[in-house]
Amino acid sequence: MYNDFFKSITDQSEKFFSPAIQFNQLVAKNIEQLAKIQLDAAHSFTETSVEQLKTAAEVKDVKSFIDFNASQLSAVNKLSQQLIEDGQKLTQLGQEFKDNLETISNETVKAAKV
Amino acid sequence: MYNDFFKSITDQSEKFFSPAIQFNQLVAKNIEQLAKIQLDAAHSFTETSVEQLKTAAEVKDVKSFIDFNASQLSAVNKLSQQLIEDGQKLTQLGQEFKDNLETISNETVKAAKV
Amino acid sequence: MYNDFFKSITDQSEKFFSPAIQFNQLVAKNIEQLAKIQLDAAHSFTETSVEQLKTAAEVKDVKSFIDFNASQLSAVNKLSQQLIEDGQKLTQLGQEFKDNLETISNETVKAAKV
Amino acid sequence: MYNDFFKSITDQSEKFFSPAIQFNQLVAKNIEQLAKIQLDAAHSFTETSVEQLKTAAEVKDVKSFIDFNASQLSAVNKLSQQLIEDGQKLTQLGQEFKDNLETISNETVKAAKV
Repeated sequence: MYNDFFKSITDQSEKFFSPAIQFNQLVAKNIEQLAKIQLDAAHSFTETSVEQLKTAAEVKDVKSFIDFNASQLSAVNKLSQQLIEDGQKLTQLGQEFKDNLETISNETVKAAKV
Repeated sequence: MYNDFFKSITDQSEKFFSPAIQFNQLVAKNIEQLAKIQLDAAHSFTETSVEQLKTAAEVKDVKSFIDFNASQLSAVNKLSQQLIEDGQKLTQLGQEFKDNLETISNETVKAAKV
Repeated sequence: MYNDFFKSITDQSEKFFSPAIQFNQLVAKNIEQLAKIQLDAAHSFTETSVEQLKTAAEVKDVKSFIDFNASQLSAVNKLSQQLIEDGQKLTQLGQEFKDNLETISNETVKAAKV
Repeated sequence: MYNDFFKSITDQSEKFFSPAIQFNQLVAKNIEQLAKIQLDAAHSFTETSVEQLKTAAEVKDVKSFIDFNASQLSAVNKLSQQLIEDGQKLTQLGQEFKDNLETISNETVKAAKV
């Protein structure tokens, strides 16, 4: 029963819902990219932090203290580089998101005028 | 110069620092386990959420709406199960942490008395 | 135009969509609770970690080293307790989620039979 | 006993450890800033997502669907802007981190030459 009922309105509603669907797919795609960047960052940051924590916990004399500081320096250098790159990725993603929104809005307005 | 200086104090300080080192290694090990549980949880939750977001964005008729709701039900069921298991893991980790702290404290007290 | 079109189907579809809406509201409510628990945990863990990192960075003699270890012990004790409590909250939330799902499923089946 | 022992080496070791302490304080300060940016981002993103999830769960007719899409558009716009700003903050933090590391390295080299 419902199938018949809804089949009849599906074709009519498709045009109505189309911009919303296109928009929601864009949102889903961008959230997926954002989640990937942030999860990768969390993973990499956690891995480095735990590694440093374990190295710090091994410090028991001057040699291991110097080793720890050298590895700390290298870890922080890597982190700085990652922050710069992640920052650029986020900024770029935000900009792409904005551009896509504008494109969809314009298309919807055009479609409404036709 | 520093090497000689520190070599002479290393042996004397080793006994002094030993409980702290043992304790810091325990902290590092437990933080590593905690990080693993939380990163796995974040990964799994994000994957499921993004999957559901993409499925929701495909809803355009009654069939896809019913499909979405079925997949939502299954996702939520999986999430409930994961929450229960993660909760048990965290509680167990916290308890292990406490027990280990107590053991280390007792050993330190004993060593100090000898 | 659309308003008339959709108004006519709204009443008929309300009964059809009602269980899905009820279910989605439950999902939203539980995700909100889950997010609150995890954000609070992340906040508290980060605050403690940064505090310890700052205290560790101040270590420059035996007194500050002993102070750091005392504060580390207290931080870890607090963390253990938090893990136990967060674990119980997550397990409980997962169980509530499961119970609610079951209730909704049973009601939907009953409603379908009437 | 230990106090006397360590007091005698504290003055000598202070100069030796000073760059490491300065460096570790820099690390702690930068991790604190990074944690603040990421926690704020997680908080804001979660708040918006949960809000949208609750609004989505209320969709039951065309009016609420249109309302949801309007609020979705505004949420995504806000998110895009936040991504751009957070990205800039992270990139800037990474750059500051790098610059500070370089300054400390140079000072350490200079001090060693004196």
